Amino acid sequence: MEKLNVALIGTGFMGKAHSIATAVVPMLFGAPVEIERRVIVDVEEKLAKDAAKNYGFSEYSTNWREVVERPDIDIVDICTPNDTHAAIAIAAAKAGKHVMCEKPMAMSVAEAEEMLAAAKKTGVVTMVSYNYRHTPALQMAKRLIEEGRIGKLLTFRGYYLQDWGADPMAPLSWRFNKAKAGSGTLGDIGTHVIDAARLLVGEVDEVNSIVKTFVPERPLPAGHFFGQRGEASKEMGKVDVDDHALTMIKFTNGVFGTIEVTRNAYGHHNQLGFEIVGTRGTIAFDYQRLNELRVAFADDPKDAFGFRTIYSGPNQPYGDLLWPVAGMGQGYIDIKSIEWYNFLKAIAEKKPAAPNFEDGVQIERIAEAILASGESGAWEKVPR
Amino acid sequence: MEKLNVALIGTGFMGKAHSIATAVVPMLFGAPVEIERRVIVDVEEKLAKDAAKNYGFSEYSTNWREVVERPDIDIVDICTPNDTHAAIAIAAAKAGKHVMCEKPMAMSVAEAEEMLAAAKKTGVVTMVSYNYRHTPALQMAKRLIEEGRIGKLLTFRGYYLQDWGADPMAPLSWRFNKAKAGSGTLGDIGTHVIDAARLLVGEVDEVNSIVKTFVPERPLPAGHFFGQRGEASKEMGKVDVDDHALTMIKFTNGVFGTIEVTRNAYGHHNQLGFEIVGTRGTIAFDYQRLNELRVAFADDPKDAFGFRTIYSGPNQPYGDLLWPVAGMGQGYIDIKSIEWYNFLKAIAEKKPAAPNFEDGVQIERIAEAILASGESGAWEKVPR
Amino acid sequence: MEKLNVALIGTGFMGKAHSIATAVVPMLFGAPVEIERRVIVDVEEKLAKDAAKNYGFSEYSTNWREVVERPDIDIVDICTPNDTHAAIAIAAAKAGKHVMCEKPMAMSVAEAEEMLAAAKKTGVVTMVSYNYRHTPALQMAKRLIEEGRIGKLLTFRGYYLQDWGADPMAPLSWRFNKAKAGSGTLGDIGTHVIDAARLLVGEVDEVNSIVKTFVPERPLPAGHFFGQRGEASKEMGKVDVDDHALTMIKFTNGVFGTIEVTRNAYGHHNQLGFEIVGTRGTIAFDYQRLNELRVAFADDPKDAFGFRTIYSGPNQPYGDLLWPVAGMGQGYIDIKSIEWYNFLKAIAEKKPAAPNFEDGVQIERIAEAILASGESGAWEKVPR
Amino acid sequence: MEKLNVALIGTGFMGKAHSIATAVVPMLFGAPVEIERRVIVDVEEKLAKDAAKNYGFSEYSTNWREVVERPDIDIVDICTPNDTHAAIAIAAAKAGKHVMCEKPMAMSVAEAEEMLAAAKKTGVVTMVSYNYRHTPALQMAKRLIEEGRIGKLLTFRGYYLQDWGADPMAPLSWRFNKAKAGSGTLGDIGTHVIDAARLLVGEVDEVNSIVKTFVPERPLPAGHFFGQRGEASKEMGKVDVDDHALTMIKFTNGVFGTIEVTRNAYGHHNQLGFEIVGTRGTIAFDYQRLNELRVAFADDPKDAFGFRTIYSGPNQPYGDLLWPVAGMGQGYIDIKSIEWYNFLKAIAEKKPAAPNFEDGVQIERIAEAILASGESGAWEKVPR
Repeated sequence: MEKLNVALIGTGFMGKAHSIATAVVPMLFGAPVEIERRVIVDVEEKLAKDAAKNYGFSEYSTNWREVVERPDIDIVDICTPNDTHAAIAIAAAKAGKHVMCEKPMAMSVAEAEEMLAAAKKTGVVTMVSYNYRHTPALQMAKRLIEEGRIGKLLTFRGYYLQDWGADPMAPLSWRFNKAKAGSGTLGDIGTHVIDAARLLVGEVDEVNSIVKTFVPERPLPAGHFFGQRGEASKEMGKVDVDDHALTMIKFTNGVFGTIEVTRNAYGHHNQLGFEIVGTRGTIAFDYQRLNELRVAFADDPKDAFGFRTIYSGPNQPYGDLLWPVAGMGQGYIDIKSIEWYNFLKAIAEKKPAAPNFEDGVQIERIAEAILASGESGAWEKVPR
Repeated sequence: MEKLNVALIGTGFMGKAHSIATAVVPMLFGAPVEIERRVIVDVEEKLAKDAAKNYGFSEYSTNWREVVERPDIDIVDICTPNDTHAAIAIAAAKAGKHVMCEKPMAMSVAEAEEMLAAAKKTGVVTMVSYNYRHTPALQMAKRLIEEGRIGKLLTFRGYYLQDWGADPMAPLSWRFNKAKAGSGTLGDIGTHVIDAARLLVGEVDEVNSIVKTFVPERPLPAGHFFGQRGEASKEMGKVDVDDHALTMIKFTNGVFGTIEVTRNAYGHHNQLGFEIVGTRGTIAFDYQRLNELRVAFADDPKDAFGFRTIYSGPNQPYGDLLWPVAGMGQGYIDIKSIEWYNFLKAIAEKKPAAPNFEDGVQIERIAEAILASGESGAWEKVPR
Repeated sequence: MEKLNVALIGTGFMGKAHSIATAVVPMLFGAPVEIERRVIVDVEEKLAKDAAKNYGFSEYSTNWREVVERPDIDIVDICTPNDTHAAIAIAAAKAGKHVMCEKPMAMSVAEAEEMLAAAKKTGVVTMVSYNYRHTPALQMAKRLIEEGRIGKLLTFRGYYLQDWGADPMAPLSWRFNKAKAGSGTLGDIGTHVIDAARLLVGEVDEVNSIVKTFVPERPLPAGHFFGQRGEASKEMGKVDVDDHALTMIKFTNGVFGTIEVTRNAYGHHNQLGFEIVGTRGTIAFDYQRLNELRVAFADDPKDAFGFRTIYSGPNQPYGDLLWPVAGMGQGYIDIKSIEWYNFLKAIAEKKPAAPNFEDGVQIERIAEAILASGESGAWEKVPR
Repeated sequence: MEKLNVALIGTGFMGKAHSIATAVVPMLFGAPVEIERRVIVDVEEKLAKDAAKNYGFSEYSTNWREVVERPDIDIVDICTPNDTHAAIAIAAAKAGKHVMCEKPMAMSVAEAEEMLAAAKKTGVVTMVSYNYRHTPALQMAKRLIEEGRIGKLLTFRGYYLQDWGADPMAPLSWRFNKAKAGSGTLGDIGTHVIDAARLLVGEVDEVNSIVKTFVPERPLPAGHFFGQRGEASKEMGKVDVDDHALTMIKFTNGVFGTIEVTRNAYGHHNQLGFEIVGTRGTIAFDYQRLNELRVAFADDPKDAFGFRTIYSGPNQPYGDLLWPVAGMGQGYIDIKSIEWYNFLKAIAEKKPAAPNFEDGVQIERIAEAILASGESGAWEKVPR
């Protein structure tokens, strides 16, 4: 197969993560298709230039519009803030490029639907970067469920708890700004839980929510941010997005449960997780211990029954491709690399990737229903 | 102070637990008032007689009505199934006896209110046996909250997860029978969480719930039960109570969160717990590790911040009265004994005990609102 | 069977614990023999009198010599400091009384051997209070080993870590005084690990040790102690016992490993535990989580292999006699009560109890070999 | 600064890991010196050719002797089996190349000393790949110790427990062959613990050991291995190295403790860890949870004292260079990349790297003393 050229747009934290993943994926797995990291783009020239050098791209550019239409570009990788996803993705899809797009997919359902429509028209392969679903332990949960090893599912409890927003003096980065981010905690991290819920349990039917902003004002930022980190200025600004979203959730298959997401829970740094109860067992996952999956099997001998801790290794998903013994330390780079592996494999096999733009649209619909229920105080149906 | 005579009604699992606690309390703490375990009552004479001998009561009886009116009885301790609490408590209160009553207090709010009214009339000291609130680690959580050490409270997540009902062939004991138990999982164990929520956070304003019965039919029991354990017959019977209750909850002080209770979650045996997030820290408690409290303090040095595990010992509540080093193993007997210590102390000091019949009534109101919301699918106000 | 009368000598922390256990044992299990708690003894009359009242003994005395020879006494329970065990036990055994003796059994092997000889002569039932071995989770470990469920044993790592001695200003109680205590950490808590090692693995053949005193001087105590707790005076005194003992250990069956005991490890309050590796699995126990046993079984499916956490409940040892669901909270009182249950059962069945004076002697021999190796720096054989 | 060219020798598991690390290091941190991954070497041409393509090296070769003398090569990275380390390292050092060498450094102390002598002569920068010491949580332990935050050190317990050798039918790879591996478990993984011990505590003075081979025969392998994974043939071969080494250890500064290493402990996959007790606190690290460090500080408030779990993030070592929030998942790739970062930084700053060949030699001396003590059964001094 010929080599595919990648254009990466955005040089912040996610630009760095995708640069690493695209470099690592052929070494870790043997790439399903050969790629060249051709061009990296940032509106600030210095950032673009430095990134090209540090991250090993052949070229840099400050003009994503030009780049996504270049005939030598095959894959567009969108790592920019949320308010630019739609424009870039639509242009890229129109130009016939495969699109990897960081999450959340868009600023609204409407925007996401436009992106999907554009991609459908040209038939390009799409992926939304809900990276945590690619964690081997989470995929092991999926395997256990699919093989019926915890029986018929009964309940789901999903959560994503962080604490970098708990300090009221943490600066008002774009993540606290609706015009830039679309929504707050829910869009930023809650959508990861929604993705996991759909992957592991099924489609969501309706939701009933409480949505809160705990810190209504924060210091405006001073200068650039790297992910969640940056300096504060002396001036205060208004936060217009949610800090915390709590929702009850009903799936179409009868399973029910909760999703709780926050950036204000001290002690929880990046704690994405879930517990799924079935009629023959229970599965628990917590990303802060991403190498582990906890499972209780009803079929264990009665005197030796209890949650066991399974470390991801050669006997779990992707184990043949990663490290030779369990417990060596799968980390965020592994997850991001598996994400790219799955994306490239879909391109190689001319099949849809997962999660793709259709998934992304549906996740946006669920997120919007959660916010709507936060307003209405009633159960809100999720459109399909 | 003179000695007070106790009549204990009911010789099942809870009769045993209270027998032990009333024997242990003076040894463990030095009793605030001297008590004699005067008479134990069961409708079956053999059970009553054996219990008197094994549990060390001076006498036995099969007639609780007679006993609660005996002039030599000062305290009536109700350890019978839920459908008998009201009659016994009201008779005891009318006769001027202090009343300890196992939980849940009553079959309905109406019944509980009658019990409270009877107790108020004669001014007797009352307690409802929500024993888990007396756990030293949970009381330590209360101390930390009251001292402001985790700041202003933001959210509450409470749960009580068991698995003894998960097997659909687990027999249909009285706990699955509305006529005997009043309600199912919610009344049986959910009320413990409600008690903790009120103790630690405050009054509940409204609730929004999903209530489910997963196993609609079970084998009828064959013979006596000890707590949750007993034999099954071949005949099936209908379960008419809830297996699982999930509720969102709003407190009057603005805190919000969830309560989830179940008897069907494999791997969770007796997992009562909560996590409370405040503006300066987070507290987590899990009764399966009842000697431990996990707390994250925002004031820790930034490079040494994280959840710490505090073992209950001499420096935590009741520590001066219990074992000389932390980690010696506080257990259920300690908890039950502290419960009795608090009850007797209230009697000695002629003050209300906690949780008392007023608390019990309010807990019933919250439970009824949760069931009502399970029916209505909408937020239900909790009456006060 | 007739009723047996108990005389308890010593009203400190252990006197309290045994008082509770002897009261609880018939309620918890139904006593194998009926007992009366007849007389409690302390050299200080006030302590004896108060104890009789608080702990529910029929009488009190200040003269143990008289008491152990009273014809109405059947069982003598020794809860006094170590330097008095031998005299009391020998007198009691000579008088034909069954003897429960707190650990460590004696001040030296020679003393312990005399005690054993006296007991053998009259054939009384003896027990040494290595109470932790009676923990259901530890007994579950024993069951798994005996049933071959972790294969042939390979290695043993035992430890007992405390921190109440870590503060150099913690007062010099009798536990730091060789004349009163016989030895230091090793005798006080190390002997518990040796007991567990013999119970679970087998006889110890030789040892090789490092023994250290970290804090050579401490403030002398001011007034009475309760267990490890008491006030300090301004005067300093010399510590002449070990703070920390570390030993390699070889068993006669080829298993080898380590025992490490300390009172100076901050963060470890009462952390008795072990890990045993076999050819088909591994077992780990930690008393600070005494309700749990962690086991890895090689026979688990390869993709679902990992340490599981088994909570002690109805399906584990003593489970039929204790609480109806796992996770209700077995604690120190349960352990002490099981100890007494086993002792009374041995008396009822006219069989040796375990651990008895023969076990106690052998434990002393191992402890002495460890101290000898600490001096010699070489492997020391344990005599048999 | 000019660009340095790297030659990597060996395309197995470690060749893969170093390929990834050398690619990731400039992206993750900005490389202290620019490097080009110039040539990759394997004696089998197909392996070399595939590796060059998959891992992104400019060239490949089957002749390491030629390569290490090429004038365009600046750094030689040795990822071959242990029996080839010395020849390659000496040739490279003689040719004036900086040398990264996988662990264990050599087959014997004598070999290691020759390697060191060669490197000293030309003054090249050397590093031995004891990668785990670069884990941020372990470096955080070092910071806490150096800042005196757990006081003066008292004891050290180090361990490295694996289970891939527990199955007696696991094939006899080169790791079980003395002629190829030099020693067994001790050299393979025990040396990592020795490295951590020296880093965190200090120089080792003497050791006293038990060394065992549990599985004396294994099936010979069939074909290539990737790390610990490979196929078995039907023929059996003799294991001539240790499966398990247990040692007591005395440091020159008075600290003492144990090191235990095994490949036969079911349930422990890659469990490198330690616990260090000081006079003001205790630190515990376990690589299977490499993002976490557990610390108990004596200075905590008495009622809120206990082990806390610190997640490595921006506030811990290397945190400014890695991910923006704690708990994102540092993994093995991060560790390997930090290792290369430190090596390149040392080259850039013309300073010794750590651990370097001097460290490597001393680690070999300790390992040899441990094996010698396993033979003699006595304390063995470690030469300096």
